[in-house]
Amino acid sequence: MAGQINIIALEGVPLVHPGDDLVEIIINALTLSNECLKNDDVLVVAQKIISKAEGRIVALDSVSPSERAEKLAIELGKDPRQIELVLQESREIVRSKPGVVIVEQNLGLVMANAGIDRSNVVQQSDQEYVLLLPVDPDASSNRLREKINKRLGVKVGIIINDSIGRAWRVGTTGHAIGVAGLPAVIDLRGEKDMFGKELLVSEQAVADELASAASLLQGQASEALPIVVVRGFKSNATNQTAKALIRERDMDMFR
Amino acid sequence: MAGQINIIALEGVPLVHPGDDLVEIIINALTLSNECLKNDDVLVVAQKIISKAEGRIVALDSVSPSERAEKLAIELGKDPRQIELVLQESREIVRSKPGVVIVEQNLGLVMANAGIDRSNVVQQSDQEYVLLLPVDPDASSNRLREKINKRLGVKVGIIINDSIGRAWRVGTTGHAIGVAGLPAVIDLRGEKDMFGKELLVSEQAVADELASAASLLQGQASEALPIVVVRGFKSNATNQTAKALIRERDMDMFR
Repeated sequence: MAGQINIIALEGVPLVHPGDDLVEIIINALTLSNECLKNDDVLVVAQKIISKAEGRIVALDSVSPSERAEKLAIELGKDPRQIELVLQESREIVRSKPGVVIVEQNLGLVMANAGIDRSNVVQQSDQEYVLLLPVDPDASSNRLREKINKRLGVKVGIIINDSIGRAWRVGTTGHAIGVAGLPAVIDLRGEKDMFGKELLVSEQAVADELASAASLLQGQASEALPIVVVRGFKSNATNQTAKALIRERDMDMFR
Repeated sequence: MAGQINIIALEGVPLVHPGDDLVEIIINALTLSNECLKNDDVLVVAQKIISKAEGRIVALDSVSPSERAEKLAIELGKDPRQIELVLQESREIVRSKPGVVIVEQNLGLVMANAGIDRSNVVQQSDQEYVLLLPVDPDASSNRLREKINKRLGVKVGIIINDSIGRAWRVGTTGHAIGVAGLPAVIDLRGEKDMFGKELLVSEQAVADELASAASLLQGQASEALPIVVVRGFKSNATNQTAKALIRERDMDMFR
């Protein structure tokens, strides 16, 4: 039998609000989609609904830009309140030019705008809101995994994914920013190829590949399909968090 | 009905040799796997078997390193014959340090070692062989697509994928280095989010996401599963080549 992986987007996911119980939402969506969860399924959840459930919504009017933010905002042609949030959410500005600011976000992710998003957030009357990344998406993933195990009795893997751009490629792809219950990187070094020759460099970022696979169904324009089940991915490697995907600073040749 | 994508690895793919007819190999593997191809399926084919079929195998003993290659090889602690090939296959060295050389490969791909691979190539007696990337993987993809259409009557998309590392992330993911019969990047700019707000930046590199999804089944240690069918990916966007995924030099902030 040929190897097979199925990627299933759940329907019936409502708008998520701060404080919502995502496990309840997942269980309802499974029922409405006539699907279930099995052991070793990987549940890929879009960052946006995690951030919303965790209340990471900020009204721009509530932000007081620092002097540094004001200055940088003029340089880059951006909203100083948004730049203030970018600075708060980041360890370092990696590159910037008018219209673009690439940072090392507090989680170690090198990305534009610290992952702060203005789309798909309810904009009330004259107030404008933005969404920050979860504070600790690995912990969020682990909590979700444990609650699902308690409620449904199954042991699933969890990935929280976000669409992130790349240095030399056009367009974003799904990246795993939170991981629980599965390996993030499979280390093939030391294994042999088909001809018995030892592989020199071979680490496969499977959690990012799973995040990308799910992203194909989630799309980006709307968040109608933020919860995706990936079934059939097998690995004997040890479980890791998304931290395993962050390249250490002293291995970085591009800053 | 919930959206669904199925990823199916074909069994029964033999060792590929220069001059082999890949369409013949694909048709045999479909039969042996009890699978078929349908319109709009995406066939993801590992770079290695394309390179082998196209005879991109080089015996290291046949390579005469230039003075520049000899010098660089000492600096980097690498085989001067391999460095000679890296230089021939590249437009520019982007970064290098002992043990690592990152180049802009002739196709515009920023990657280690110009994608030259020593694993999964038959090593005969005392001869050592390496595998170069295909000369024009977009053209290879297009030829494959047309031949399959002629033989089987179906219109499929083709992706040639390779495992490529990233600047700030650990591990490789599947990347599309050749594309035919499907969009590579979906441009969502100008579309509205769920609340009618216009999306500012939103280009999704779907061909890379498809390449990554397939890579989950292909693995890297052996090339036993180099051909994968992805079924259920839908898009109304225009067909492109893999060139659409290469960021233009003047948009590059990291060289």
